[in-house]
Amino acid sequence: MSAVTPGPRPLRLAMVGGGQDAFIGAVHRMAARLDGQYELVAGALSSTPDKARASGLALGLTEERSYPSHEALIAGELAKPPSERVQVVSIVTPNHLHYPVALACVQAGFHVVCDKPLVHTVTQALALRQAVRQAGTVFGVTYNYSGYPLVRQMRHMVQGGELGELRKVSAEYHQGWLARSVTEAESKQAGWRTDPARSGPAGALGDIGTHAEQLMRYVTGQDACEVCAELTSFVPGRTLDDDVTVLLRYPGGAKGLLTASQVEIGRENDLRLAVFGTLGSLSWRQEDPNVLVYDRLDAPRQLLTRGGPGLSAAAQAATRLPAGHPEAFIEAFANVYSGVARHVRALERGEPHTPDYPTVEDGVQGVAFVGDVLRSHHAGGRWVTCEDHGTA
Amino acid sequence: MSAVTPGPRPLRLAMVGGGQDAFIGAVHRMAARLDGQYELVAGALSSTPDKARASGLALGLTEERSYPSHEALIAGELAKPPSERVQVVSIVTPNHLHYPVALACVQAGFHVVCDKPLVHTVTQALALRQAVRQAGTVFGVTYNYSGYPLVRQMRHMVQGGELGELRKVSAEYHQGWLARSVTEAESKQAGWRTDPARSGPAGALGDIGTHAEQLMRYVTGQDACEVCAELTSFVPGRTLDDDVTVLLRYPGGAKGLLTASQVEIGRENDLRLAVFGTLGSLSWRQEDPNVLVYDRLDAPRQLLTRGGPGLSAAAQAATRLPAGHPEAFIEAFANVYSGVARHVRALERGEPHTPDYPTVEDGVQGVAFVGDVLRSHHAGGRWVTCEDHGTA
Amino acid sequence: MSAVTPGPRPLRLAMVGGGQDAFIGAVHRMAARLDGQYELVAGALSSTPDKARASGLALGLTEERSYPSHEALIAGELAKPPSERVQVVSIVTPNHLHYPVALACVQAGFHVVCDKPLVHTVTQALALRQAVRQAGTVFGVTYNYSGYPLVRQMRHMVQGGELGELRKVSAEYHQGWLARSVTEAESKQAGWRTDPARSGPAGALGDIGTHAEQLMRYVTGQDACEVCAELTSFVPGRTLDDDVTVLLRYPGGAKGLLTASQVEIGRENDLRLAVFGTLGSLSWRQEDPNVLVYDRLDAPRQLLTRGGPGLSAAAQAATRLPAGHPEAFIEAFANVYSGVARHVRALERGEPHTPDYPTVEDGVQGVAFVGDVLRSHHAGGRWVTCEDHGTA
Amino acid sequence: MSAVTPGPRPLRLAMVGGGQDAFIGAVHRMAARLDGQYELVAGALSSTPDKARASGLALGLTEERSYPSHEALIAGELAKPPSERVQVVSIVTPNHLHYPVALACVQAGFHVVCDKPLVHTVTQALALRQAVRQAGTVFGVTYNYSGYPLVRQMRHMVQGGELGELRKVSAEYHQGWLARSVTEAESKQAGWRTDPARSGPAGALGDIGTHAEQLMRYVTGQDACEVCAELTSFVPGRTLDDDVTVLLRYPGGAKGLLTASQVEIGRENDLRLAVFGTLGSLSWRQEDPNVLVYDRLDAPRQLLTRGGPGLSAAAQAATRLPAGHPEAFIEAFANVYSGVARHVRALERGEPHTPDYPTVEDGVQGVAFVGDVLRSHHAGGRWVTCEDHGTA
Repeated sequence: MSAVTPGPRPLRLAMVGGGQDAFIGAVHRMAARLDGQYELVAGALSSTPDKARASGLALGLTEERSYPSHEALIAGELAKPPSERVQVVSIVTPNHLHYPVALACVQAGFHVVCDKPLVHTVTQALALRQAVRQAGTVFGVTYNYSGYPLVRQMRHMVQGGELGELRKVSAEYHQGWLARSVTEAESKQAGWRTDPARSGPAGALGDIGTHAEQLMRYVTGQDACEVCAELTSFVPGRTLDDDVTVLLRYPGGAKGLLTASQVEIGRENDLRLAVFGTLGSLSWRQEDPNVLVYDRLDAPRQLLTRGGPGLSAAAQAATRLPAGHPEAFIEAFANVYSGVARHVRALERGEPHTPDYPTVEDGVQGVAFVGDVLRSHHAGGRWVTCEDHGTA
Repeated sequence: MSAVTPGPRPLRLAMVGGGQDAFIGAVHRMAARLDGQYELVAGALSSTPDKARASGLALGLTEERSYPSHEALIAGELAKPPSERVQVVSIVTPNHLHYPVALACVQAGFHVVCDKPLVHTVTQALALRQAVRQAGTVFGVTYNYSGYPLVRQMRHMVQGGELGELRKVSAEYHQGWLARSVTEAESKQAGWRTDPARSGPAGALGDIGTHAEQLMRYVTGQDACEVCAELTSFVPGRTLDDDVTVLLRYPGGAKGLLTASQVEIGRENDLRLAVFGTLGSLSWRQEDPNVLVYDRLDAPRQLLTRGGPGLSAAAQAATRLPAGHPEAFIEAFANVYSGVARHVRALERGEPHTPDYPTVEDGVQGVAFVGDVLRSHHAGGRWVTCEDHGTA
Repeated sequence: MSAVTPGPRPLRLAMVGGGQDAFIGAVHRMAARLDGQYELVAGALSSTPDKARASGLALGLTEERSYPSHEALIAGELAKPPSERVQVVSIVTPNHLHYPVALACVQAGFHVVCDKPLVHTVTQALALRQAVRQAGTVFGVTYNYSGYPLVRQMRHMVQGGELGELRKVSAEYHQGWLARSVTEAESKQAGWRTDPARSGPAGALGDIGTHAEQLMRYVTGQDACEVCAELTSFVPGRTLDDDVTVLLRYPGGAKGLLTASQVEIGRENDLRLAVFGTLGSLSWRQEDPNVLVYDRLDAPRQLLTRGGPGLSAAAQAATRLPAGHPEAFIEAFANVYSGVARHVRALERGEPHTPDYPTVEDGVQGVAFVGDVLRSHHAGGRWVTCEDHGTA
Repeated sequence: MSAVTPGPRPLRLAMVGGGQDAFIGAVHRMAARLDGQYELVAGALSSTPDKARASGLALGLTEERSYPSHEALIAGELAKPPSERVQVVSIVTPNHLHYPVALACVQAGFHVVCDKPLVHTVTQALALRQAVRQAGTVFGVTYNYSGYPLVRQMRHMVQGGELGELRKVSAEYHQGWLARSVTEAESKQAGWRTDPARSGPAGALGDIGTHAEQLMRYVTGQDACEVCAELTSFVPGRTLDDDVTVLLRYPGGAKGLLTASQVEIGRENDLRLAVFGTLGSLSWRQEDPNVLVYDRLDAPRQLLTRGGPGLSAAAQAATRLPAGHPEAFIEAFANVYSGVARHVRALERGEPHTPDYPTVEDGVQGVAFVGDVLRSHHAGGRWVTCEDHGTA
């Protein structure tokens, strides 16, 4: 088990978005708090100034630092001495605000944790990546599922060659909560997620398909070179896709399958990841995240458990509790936050650091993937070649 | 529970193929025996006459009825008086022999149980269907997975509208036993199944993909109108596909996903079927066949169990044991055999009868599906329109 | 996989009890038929002569051999030449008839398959054992759960020392079908099972507790020396126990726990067996019988699957299908019948044979266990020393 | 989902014990932090003053408040003005220190969160309870498993009569980490837990059996009136029990079974709870804590999921995330901490409050249970009557 040793002082954190009734804001705050690495000191918690202020006070922020807008937050914090100033800004707004807020924060010199999908367009994504490179700041994207210890174990084993040569990777993401038409009055989440203006050009594809894509890439270390996609909007009146299937081809001959649906009644948040190589395979389910199924040629199946015997240092470093004491969603999410914190501290100490959390590069890839898939879709479901936007 | 009442006398059964060392022959014999509906009295159990004779004797057949070939079997049985003559012929040869043997048997007036995929080509399939129609005989195809009671429950619920309007259907068939190159010396099964001359134009697609396709059709009652396929031969030197993914579109707007692989290390015979409608969904796994997961909008998940409360007459009629006393592969297989027997007896009594087992029509559809998928594959993975070969 | 090679001619089988509406008779017949080792040729299928005759005819027996009583059956068969005479009698009556029928059959020289619990009293059990020893015939008791391949694997591993020294063994048998008062009109099964005159002095203890006890003994090879029992009759008006817990102590210091209940609503036939030693443990569930959980000190959990890698010859010999093609209750039951058949044939060939099925000795132990448990119960739940009735 | 609304200011928390290398201290700190209800401001983190100081600094405490002993902590904090003074003390020392530290803290007027088992003897427990009553302070005991939302759902359903009249309750707690002799050098946890001087008179019984007992009581609302126990020390050289089975009888006729073992190789932290009534049953497993199995007479099984449809207000109030986003051990633990915080705040506001967390009364019951079980054990495994120590 890792000693998640809190440093001497928590990082000063601000949050944009995530005010009252915003589910994801509460999740980010719990994730930030869990390891004692952050203290929330400021916020622009809503795009409605009154609500922003009320939310800030309810969260124990001072009136002064309960800012009415992200612009005010940036200005107000820049006016403070560095020793008091916010160090990290967490962006948990609806998708369409990610770009302007993130860009402004980066350009103002703040480290950022931003929700996914990063932005709406590849152009925005590349501009944001460029800004981050110029600023030299830390930028994490909350592809939180890659924070699960056993996902990190998969990455370690796959990239370490324990499965032999990669043949297949599949990520399935099954949800059912959008199986019927949901009004914004019924669910704020459902409301903006099904609105192209705020959610972006993709529905289920952007909301959960990008998680699936990131996991495939995170674990295999490979980028697909061709995709063929089938997108559907099952619910009458819905503009965006609520169901997506993508076939993927990889340069080395491996094949991929990604499915993401939000209309599968009864499926809660059933994200599954499986990797098959010439020597073995690994299978994992987010809803049962403390077990990793490991199969090898001609040998009995093994179950690797978080905290149990036989795990890599990477998995152990992401683990807080002994085996049998389950860790789950918030702990995985916190691994992303704590990874960002370690990077910020390394930067402050002037030490080199390799991120173990999803960065702006992952954000760019996710946006690019959405673009590739939509091109295939708009071409009637043809295979298309993926655009290459480079990496750092 | 059904009273699987044996009739007064078992039907006289012959078997072509399935001699010593042939796994599937033993399965068919157990399935035929289980309910006491058949007595094996004759066989041409191998294409090698000596082996055919030895296999017959080992199974307790008389020397006379341990025929050296299917031609000899047909001739020998036709020479007997109807009261002694074989009534049903079970064909369990490698695929390439299905067509000539089945056609000869049908034309000779025998009822037939034939393994799948039915034949190699659509032309053969249509010819065989035509022969069956002309002969007026019973012809079952051992799409044995549709014999599972809970698959029949799915069919009952889906076609009875309990899930509302159909949106999605998926069938996944995961195996790993061909993950490495297997010589015929090592496994007779693996040998002929990877040889196009005997297995036909499709590998995993024909061997297990057709099971998946049949289940989708059996349960939904719908035929796909377009398919888009990705076939791969992962194992070096293998000619036929060992991995296949097929996207399907249905006339009413529903979508389908079929995956079948024989290179997924650690997966044994992991066939899964899921159906999603506007009101609910059903999910089933062959390796855990006594449970059916039933989800409805905004209600807790229900687990329907074979033999348990709330099942349809169709499921009950396919059930032998109370809940908790698991039934499995052989029992499901036997449901196909016993369904054929009921049809034969109804025919003998001159009574009308609706088959509850897969017929030659299902066999035709399976061959046609293979053809459609291969056309998409050979077109580089394009969507193609499915050919319509009509039904009875 | 084993070749379950049928011998040249099936054994001639008679059945006493098990007529129309008797669930367990149909199970025995399927088990006897599955491997082609038996042909049912005679029966005294009910204690009501008319029903006995009608049941015989419905099963395809001749009128002559549809006997009105077991006495008539014995007399009628003894009058036939040995080459036609019944070889094995299967006794599937309510418990109170086991003793007179079995004793008469054994004394008449027939091999016997008898349901459990063997008889009502230890005195009867010892008399029957003595008769079997004198007759030198084969006598199987359908402790059918010991026919499961993975139970045989457990026995192989435990007795082969793979778990080290035995520490604990537990068998849990959870059912719920008697959770409310059930009249005989509603369920014939429930009726006689809750009637002491027919079921014997024990309820759940005799009906399912004896299965659990036999499995503990079968797998560990150890007999408990002390027991402490808590029996309850939860359902108002019920005379016999419907829930039982037994603590066991073994001579070598190991401990046991046996629970059996028929009032646990929702539990179908949930029989579980777990063995813990100094080096490892094994856990198995009857409702998921194709998987055996194997844990070793400081190593990842392994799942051994029926038909999969790493199994003993004993497990393989009890296996008909490849991994992933599930076998279940009937197949396990058939393993007991086929084991008896192998013994009968060995005896006929004059060859030595070690039974791999539960014998009259197991039947005696089961009856003795019931006696020990009832003594503890009647002593207010004290620990009592188990009586030793010797073995062959 | 509940809005776990952080109040305006976190409570000031001190910790006694739980310094470097102490697993459980880190757990308590995460649980306290998760909902933002506490801020750790002081500690006496080790019984070794140097280590206490170093641990405090490493956790970000000031040097002044990194106290060398709990006496110094109490004195130091009492010297501060109430607005700065610690409000709640968390006690996470080895068991033998619970009593003196808790008593001193309570008598000094601090609210307390104390680990379990509360103390070594009933005399101590009653004295501590008396002190709490006199002080009028809040006193929580970290029977953390009762913090799981679905355990609260069980309590709601059982005590609300949804299962009918209670018949049976069972709690099983399976661990394997003490299956072999573990020295203190290898594991500090294992070291003191197997030492009677520090762990108290019970081993597995005290460490995990008390959790099981508390859950049975928490969910049913019933206290057993008689117990019969079998305790074993399997590992050579071990003084305390490492395996325990307890039969329980309840005043109303219900029966209970409690098993707790730390020598079951392969079992991690496998705590299971099942309750059976005349109308239905509920089953839950700590290692899969987001699912509750609900069975009713003659109806299909239902799976209730945390965050899913059909849950009580009590379960919802303990829930942070939507269904499918698993919560686990730390979240359940945090529910106890946050429950204590709500009580403290209600007290400060002068409002009445009903605890939803385990209190000193539960602590007393746990100690009394250990005493009853040990009396049965020392009487050779006889049934003994439970002592009644009253409740508030």
